[in-house]
Amino acid sequence: MEGKNLLRYLFFLSAIVLLLYFTLLSLPYPPSKAELLDCTTSSPWCTSKNRIQSKNPENPITKPNDPTRHRQRHTADVPHHPLDPLTLTELNRVKKIIQSYELFKDSVYALHSVVLEEPEKKAVLKWKKGDPLPARRAAVIARVSGVSYVLTVDLGTGEVTRHETNQYSGYPTMTLEDMSSVTWAPLASADFNRTVIERGVDLIDLACLPISPGWFGMAEESRRLIKVQCYSMKDTANFYMRPIEGLTVVVDLDTKEVVKINDNGKNIPIPKADNTDYRFSVQNSYQRLVNPISIEQPNGPSFTIEDDHLVKWANWEFHLKPDPRAGVIISRVMVRDPSSGEVRSVMYQGLTSELFVPYMDPSDAWYFKTYMDAGEYGFGLQAMPLDPLNDCPRNAYYMDGVFAAADGTPYVRSNMVCVFESYAGDIGWRHSESPITGMKIREARPKVTLVVRMAASVANYDYIVDWEFQTDGLIRIKVGLSGILMVKGTPYVNVNQVNQQESLYGTLLSENVIGVIHDHYITFYLDMDVDGSDNSFVNVHLQREYTSPGESSRMSYLKAVRKVAKTEKDAKIKLKLNEPSEFHVVNPSKTTRVGNPVGYKVVPGATAANLLDLNDPPQKRGAFTNNQIWVTPYNKSEQWAGGLFVYQSHGDDTLEVWSQRDEPIENKDIVLWYTLGFHHIPCQEDFPIMPTVSSSFDLKPVNFFESNPILRIPPNVDKDLPVCKAAASA
Amino acid sequence: MEGKNLLRYLFFLSAIVLLLYFTLLSLPYPPSKAELLDCTTSSPWCTSKNRIQSKNPENPITKPNDPTRHRQRHTADVPHHPLDPLTLTELNRVKKIIQSYELFKDSVYALHSVVLEEPEKKAVLKWKKGDPLPARRAAVIARVSGVSYVLTVDLGTGEVTRHETNQYSGYPTMTLEDMSSVTWAPLASADFNRTVIERGVDLIDLACLPISPGWFGMAEESRRLIKVQCYSMKDTANFYMRPIEGLTVVVDLDTKEVVKINDNGKNIPIPKADNTDYRFSVQNSYQRLVNPISIEQPNGPSFTIEDDHLVKWANWEFHLKPDPRAGVIISRVMVRDPSSGEVRSVMYQGLTSELFVPYMDPSDAWYFKTYMDAGEYGFGLQAMPLDPLNDCPRNAYYMDGVFAAADGTPYVRSNMVCVFESYAGDIGWRHSESPITGMKIREARPKVTLVVRMAASVANYDYIVDWEFQTDGLIRIKVGLSGILMVKGTPYVNVNQVNQQESLYGTLLSENVIGVIHDHYITFYLDMDVDGSDNSFVNVHLQREYTSPGESSRMSYLKAVRKVAKTEKDAKIKLKLNEPSEFHVVNPSKTTRVGNPVGYKVVPGATAANLLDLNDPPQKRGAFTNNQIWVTPYNKSEQWAGGLFVYQSHGDDTLEVWSQRDEPIENKDIVLWYTLGFHHIPCQEDFPIMPTVSSSFDLKPVNFFESNPILRIPPNVDKDLPVCKAAASA
Repeated sequence: MEGKNLLRYLFFLSAIVLLLYFTLLSLPYPPSKAELLDCTTSSPWCTSKNRIQSKNPENPITKPNDPTRHRQRHTADVPHHPLDPLTLTELNRVKKIIQSYELFKDSVYALHSVVLEEPEKKAVLKWKKGDPLPARRAAVIARVSGVSYVLTVDLGTGEVTRHETNQYSGYPTMTLEDMSSVTWAPLASADFNRTVIERGVDLIDLACLPISPGWFGMAEESRRLIKVQCYSMKDTANFYMRPIEGLTVVVDLDTKEVVKINDNGKNIPIPKADNTDYRFSVQNSYQRLVNPISIEQPNGPSFTIEDDHLVKWANWEFHLKPDPRAGVIISRVMVRDPSSGEVRSVMYQGLTSELFVPYMDPSDAWYFKTYMDAGEYGFGLQAMPLDPLNDCPRNAYYMDGVFAAADGTPYVRSNMVCVFESYAGDIGWRHSESPITGMKIREARPKVTLVVRMAASVANYDYIVDWEFQTDGLIRIKVGLSGILMVKGTPYVNVNQVNQQESLYGTLLSENVIGVIHDHYITFYLDMDVDGSDNSFVNVHLQREYTSPGESSRMSYLKAVRKVAKTEKDAKIKLKLNEPSEFHVVNPSKTTRVGNPVGYKVVPGATAANLLDLNDPPQKRGAFTNNQIWVTPYNKSEQWAGGLFVYQSHGDDTLEVWSQRDEPIENKDIVLWYTLGFHHIPCQEDFPIMPTVSSSFDLKPVNFFESNPILRIPPNVDKDLPVCKAAASA
Repeated sequence: MEGKNLLRYLFFLSAIVLLLYFTLLSLPYPPSKAELLDCTTSSPWCTSKNRIQSKNPENPITKPNDPTRHRQRHTADVPHHPLDPLTLTELNRVKKIIQSYELFKDSVYALHSVVLEEPEKKAVLKWKKGDPLPARRAAVIARVSGVSYVLTVDLGTGEVTRHETNQYSGYPTMTLEDMSSVTWAPLASADFNRTVIERGVDLIDLACLPISPGWFGMAEESRRLIKVQCYSMKDTANFYMRPIEGLTVVVDLDTKEVVKINDNGKNIPIPKADNTDYRFSVQNSYQRLVNPISIEQPNGPSFTIEDDHLVKWANWEFHLKPDPRAGVIISRVMVRDPSSGEVRSVMYQGLTSELFVPYMDPSDAWYFKTYMDAGEYGFGLQAMPLDPLNDCPRNAYYMDGVFAAADGTPYVRSNMVCVFESYAGDIGWRHSESPITGMKIREARPKVTLVVRMAASVANYDYIVDWEFQTDGLIRIKVGLSGILMVKGTPYVNVNQVNQQESLYGTLLSENVIGVIHDHYITFYLDMDVDGSDNSFVNVHLQREYTSPGESSRMSYLKAVRKVAKTEKDAKIKLKLNEPSEFHVVNPSKTTRVGNPVGYKVVPGATAANLLDLNDPPQKRGAFTNNQIWVTPYNKSEQWAGGLFVYQSHGDDTLEVWSQRDEPIENKDIVLWYTLGFHHIPCQEDFPIMPTVSSSFDLKPVNFFESNPILRIPPNVDKDLPVCKAAASA
């Protein structure tokens, strides 16, 4: 071996060792048999920080304690509600049962999902506090020797009561171990290492991302693959802005074998690191634009969290749990009717079912970027600990996720969800009398809301998902997009260098950096149960009517025409500004005092429609975004709009496929699906990190209450509000 | 005269005297020659209450003082900026000049509008602080002996320099005196009084509303008319819920003569008063749903208001003034570029140009309800004093309007506009690194905004208009709808009584009460000046492209295609979800470092399109709502989308008419028009007062800044935030 080669060999070897070391450090669990991953020593991903302190020990709210006691708390967690997630103890029991189950003995296996197998809806609806819990079961998705299994583990009997292989195309959600380990797989290839160095990047500066490859019908795609693309993290934490453009390494996710390397961007420089780092600690200067400002509640928050998961606030109550796939799951959503005092059902369950993020660049290193973040990466697995005071305001309550690593060992994702009350200075309702009537009236009520928030960082992008409850019965579901763009390297440093005929597929954001156009679709599963499970979907269409000759001086007006959807076909809605409708979910068996069916409506906000060709392979997989609204009969197994096994799926198990059966949905237990969309043409303001862009939709009572449910709330008066002083003077 | 008739006569006489007395009490000015209306004794409409107190006397913010000193303050007001509204002293001078002007001598006249005649845009742009002000002029709209005049009064020379009669159809905005006085005109009709009493309503319980009649091409409409409809205010302040249905009195607004009475609803009972009153003071019980909560800034707000009207906050500055027609006018909107430190122009002026509110019931008492609230009623005239702590949070600054009554006497509409900072717990930008990359990063920044708010109560309805400024350069314009529905009486008490074939034109909200379907359109005038006056409008269309065979595994993608609008026709935009575009206003003479044209885009939120037939008379008048976006060349006289004289106009002076000329708009001083729409199918929750429904649109920087302008703002840290305690314990 030549001296030069030996040096190179030693360099690579040490680089690999170093990378392995860092990778192990970053694993969400240490390779041990501990009962709980020790986050404080081995992983930054599940640590706690700045837990809120109770200002008022009398306050009935459950508050997480300090980190030490906190870990003890999870150790002592017990389920109280049929929908409570698996506890640490239960996860450990699942792990043990699996270990001794025949299928797993002497096999290499990985658990891709271990969550509560929720009891039958009927059993949950029947259950009352004090009743014994229905049998606790775990739903396990595992891969054993290249085969995907769906198992049910009975925690009571210790038996595996269901054991099925995947019926459809596709693979389970990647484990965190899949994602972490595959990023250093390319280093096993000398070709890869050579090209990286030729591009001027030291191997030690490499940061690589695991990119789900989608599915395009090619033969090579019959195994579990991933595409790895890399960046230089030299001189910036924002390596996303420094792509090694055109270099794509196809890796076998099961074997970690490098299958193929595409290397097409050798003429494209790595963009500079200047002005890309966004961390406060590395800024040379800062701009303090505003004085300290805070939402303050000197008597503490008004909500309580009973038994770890049951949130009660104002007139609302609901069950809240973190989930590795959906992020958060909100269940048994009920609101108190002020006229009867009764607590009435609104929704059985709501969750983020799937995301679909197609990029709009057909070239080799980009065409496949058509992410499905929930089913491929785990929307909850990517929800990192929230930053108190910045991700959520003071007085927020933080809820941890307790998840299982690939070997079944539980770990705590702390501060994964926050719950807080918000007051933005908005008005709940108001009226002044004007000089016309001469009455001296000024009545206004402040609007206070309760927000449940999580923020998933799916590699570069950050999705902030808020479930916001208003006292008037409205639920707003809001998605904020922030984080960092996925950008493309280019030789261009100025738009004037670009030939008019050439498409950049995006915007030149900085020298050598293109922000590629892409869409975001977030599909929500909303199992509405308006005063009971059997509901109907009504399209209240506003259509233009003409008056008869001589009938009126008016020629036209809009008339509301109600059409009850009979089958799924009637409820596939493409929104059109010029053909407006309201979309009601009503209980046809129940009316208000004056005879209107009680209901909730879904109220779209700003959104975007998917315009890809329906036969384009990614769009077949993302066919659940073909309509903005769908309604299906409730089916416990149909929760994930892109299918249970989304990774490399062919689109054979999507909401679109299910609803082709066109089943009856009138006066049935129905599920409403809403897709919130964004078109994103990047602009320079998105560089190097994007100011949050958000949109939302509402679930709004429509003849659900007999009248305005917040008529009797009091106005603010000065004597109730806090007395504050500057912290500096404290 | 029989005893019974004498009694009746005496009763009516006393009722009329009483009503006259109340009416005079309610007039916004006492019939005196005072220099300023004495609001404290004669009118509830301009009183102050709960003015904010400076917590920190060092604070540089101008704060209104207590009511007494406050009145003195307006007495001493002087203009500091070319766009400052006419001061109290200036209004008095206009009154005097008008009184001695030949036209008005020995004539009965009314001033329908007295506002600043803004100097030429060029002069305003050239002006710098310290320069002498351009000549101060008043724009006066007056009616003298049945003729409408447009006058310009030069305050320096004391001369009337422009004197024109109305060229188009239509009449000026009603005066408050028109609106107040006309409501008792029907009492002069014995027929009216008889029918009211026959309906079971005591005359003393009558509350009548002045309803603009629109224009339907009928001969009778050639004089200034109004339609008066009445309600019973017995046992409730919410008389709107107790219509005397079908009774419409047509009154001549100039002579107060009853022209015609339509009386079609004799079989319709007056709905009951039960559960209609919304005032806190009359509730039997109340629900306190949440603990005290407040936005707190112990160091005070971060904005200053220089010279009464120049708002400076964070990186923004703009001129703010109340206006009797538009409500608020925001001018000279500039933002500081953090990269250069330069203060850059975004918008020359923005305002609510017109509202259009067509009801969807063609029957006799309803077909004409097609309000244009700005031009008919004065959106600012109807903006009542805001209620501190409820309409706006603590630390809000309140700005007064100083307007002229019909005889020219100035009066103060106090607390008409508020300015405050809002923090809702939202996130300005964020990013966490995920376990995939193993980097320990959690960076988040709180989002704080500045809100300028007014709330107009146009009889029953309340419109809350917010101009919200974000530190990232975004301006959100939000309209909230609250207040009280305009309802229709009906014999029905339950939906099951209604024949399937019959249309209610709305929803049965309570026994005998129908909430009639209607739309709201709010059209904004946005004179964008992005880095200078000459701008272009670019439609950045996202169109589906197909790849060539063999080019890619992807079949389709979306491509952004930029089309610069050449003439007005190119910029008439009907929004379509399936044909998406971004709408940029760019400065074609200026690019960013990497060559993108600097710009702002208008980003629609949820909205509604007007679907009335284009030939329907109301839609001809409201033709400015035919498109969601229009662009016109700047023309000082084209500010009011429905025309300067909207009342009973024929639609001959609207934005739609102007833009038929199809003038060039490329690289010109252009004005962007955006219409925000709502369809409103009432529901029971809207009874007896509506929880706020809101929607918004954004003006957002797009390659205006070189990069994220808030990269360097600091995160919140606990030590900066306030220390608060409960007020009760203070």
